[in-house]
Amino acid sequence: MANTSGGTGLQLRSTVKKDGILELSLTTIATPEPKPEEVIVRIDASPINPSDQGLLFAGADVSTAKASGRTDNPVVTASISPAVMKAMAGRLEQSLPVGNEGAGVVVQAGASPAAQALMGKTVAILGGAMYAQFRCIKASQCLVLPRGTTPAEGASCFVNPLTALGMIETMRAEGHSALVHTAAASNLGQMLNKICIKDGIGLLNIVRKREHVDVLKAIGAKHIVNSSGSTFIDDLTEALVATGATLAFDAIGGGRLASQILSCMEAAANRTAREYSRYGSTTHKQVYIYGGLDGGPTELVRNFGMAWGLGGWLLVPFLQKIGPEAAQKLRERVASEIKTTFASHYNKEVSLAESLRLEEIAIYGKKATGQKYLINPNKGLAH
Amino acid sequence: MANTSGGTGLQLRSTVKKDGILELSLTTIATPEPKPEEVIVRIDASPINPSDQGLLFAGADVSTAKASGRTDNPVVTASISPAVMKAMAGRLEQSLPVGNEGAGVVVQAGASPAAQALMGKTVAILGGAMYAQFRCIKASQCLVLPRGTTPAEGASCFVNPLTALGMIETMRAEGHSALVHTAAASNLGQMLNKICIKDGIGLLNIVRKREHVDVLKAIGAKHIVNSSGSTFIDDLTEALVATGATLAFDAIGGGRLASQILSCMEAAANRTAREYSRYGSTTHKQVYIYGGLDGGPTELVRNFGMAWGLGGWLLVPFLQKIGPEAAQKLRERVASEIKTTFASHYNKEVSLAESLRLEEIAIYGKKATGQKYLINPNKGLAH
Repeated sequence: MANTSGGTGLQLRSTVKKDGILELSLTTIATPEPKPEEVIVRIDASPINPSDQGLLFAGADVSTAKASGRTDNPVVTASISPAVMKAMAGRLEQSLPVGNEGAGVVVQAGASPAAQALMGKTVAILGGAMYAQFRCIKASQCLVLPRGTTPAEGASCFVNPLTALGMIETMRAEGHSALVHTAAASNLGQMLNKICIKDGIGLLNIVRKREHVDVLKAIGAKHIVNSSGSTFIDDLTEALVATGATLAFDAIGGGRLASQILSCMEAAANRTAREYSRYGSTTHKQVYIYGGLDGGPTELVRNFGMAWGLGGWLLVPFLQKIGPEAAQKLRERVASEIKTTFASHYNKEVSLAESLRLEEIAIYGKKATGQKYLINPNKGLAH
Repeated sequence: MANTSGGTGLQLRSTVKKDGILELSLTTIATPEPKPEEVIVRIDASPINPSDQGLLFAGADVSTAKASGRTDNPVVTASISPAVMKAMAGRLEQSLPVGNEGAGVVVQAGASPAAQALMGKTVAILGGAMYAQFRCIKASQCLVLPRGTTPAEGASCFVNPLTALGMIETMRAEGHSALVHTAAASNLGQMLNKICIKDGIGLLNIVRKREHVDVLKAIGAKHIVNSSGSTFIDDLTEALVATGATLAFDAIGGGRLASQILSCMEAAANRTAREYSRYGSTTHKQVYIYGGLDGGPTELVRNFGMAWGLGGWLLVPFLQKIGPEAAQKLRERVASEIKTTFASHYNKEVSLAESLRLEEIAIYGKKATGQKYLINPNKGLAH
């Protein structure tokens, strides 16, 4: 195992310039000497999640991207619209590291027994700055992967698995008995189906394409509705009656989908109403927006009574809310089922330099279902 | 005190016909013999609240209203659009009584001591069917008004006062320290200002007209923002910084106001942010829609991070949530301050028959601030 003391490593950086230009580049940083409670992880695998792309691209128009620099040290620039720039005031001229989660091997450890015990272990970690050859992190933040698990297999231990489990925990905590998920053929959506099938939870999948219906059928999903179909509203209402779902997690955000879900939930609730109430059913209907695949405005046609809620949902505040013990239980479940329930699939593995090629950005930048990339920051680099 | 046994009284009714016609009329009903725990209240005053008009007009286009029948027994009809008719399926061809709250004198009482104790008392009551000469109700539902209070003074003891108090209780229960209110020059809004001034609570008033700023200034309101002004967004942000309000109650519902409030709350929260987060501030921002002065779609431009919620808010579920003891405390406060904090103002007092005159409907149907009507169901009728 190489000792990285005094060594350096590449790290991907994203900078928003004052003049409305996004700049992506690689920088060489010194690998720090770990403190007693810390370890150095050589990152061998880190996914490009939709949640990473917000920080990475800063809302820039990726179609304007231009490449410069050397092949092994590329620089990408792209334009950011004035409207988006307003929201970027907090990060102007800051060279920010990117990458929420990853996995790799502990190559150096601080003096504490907890850190030393991790030497040579393959671990999964969460916490930003993962698009880098090396990451210094507290030993307590490392999730040791079961023997025989590769970094690529363990790279997505946190964001998708804990989000899927968090949706189910939220459903239970808020008194719902089944749930709706949109953009449901995604890696996250497939994972959610596996959990719900295993745990016997009603899940209503909303997809936007015919072929995604087939993807979900193939893994055993029971309730699938296609929002591009002409019978969508009727199909959704019937599936809501069948599942009894009164909670939805929406990855799309913009447009009328959240409104349609609330409206169909209300119609489903009124199937069993005994008397007319001008305030609608007393059944509380909730939609949480956790993504923004459609960045446009959310439009609510308020024909769903008064017992409803819409809100943002994020993993980190959820984990803070349930507390460290409950969160650790969820993490342990993920580790123990990482090759089955929580297995992720990637379209392509790229190096840091390859991740900045325009032809790759054009593909993964679409955040399309089935087009997920894995960065291997040490691919092709000696260590 | 007249004994109403075997007597009858007029009651206002609203019916949605299958063919998309709303019909308003008066009907004569027998006054029931009160059960031991019940009393008969002669209703002398009942307000026409915006919350009554939903049931009364059933979303009909009031500009199409036609009058027929005799002056003392009028019938009003109006057209309901096919889109609105969809939401009326639950009340088709049902002759429904109207009027959420009112006040009057107990003219007959059941045999129980609790009922007998109310004979001759002036009481306020809540529970529907108040646009009627007489209302049979449980003695336990009667709020005895302080000596010297007229029915007109006590007619609006519940909907507005408890809604205003409910907003403040919700603010406390959900951990906010100040609140925002829209359509803030309304009877309810003025009441909310009086409570907040008395109790030392920060209140940010949003009004839509210049003259409403003056109305609120006159009663001592501290923070007033005019949404029709060119500096609205800046004014709102500054007032949010000043009050620290992270909760809003919105009577308007449609359009972009809720979105603007969330956006300005986020800007106010970010004034004190120490580092950039692409998910926005961690401050939870909440808007509750409790009315629908604008029935159009609610449009959310999601530039306010992920820590936000939007939802419906209604008085009755709120009272159920806090439980009967806490609700009773709120009612007692209203009764004790009915001539001061919770005083209501009416533009005009009308009889049941007068309330169905087209020229009156044209005025109160606008639900405009300062155009509130009080029905006196016994006006001009012998009893």
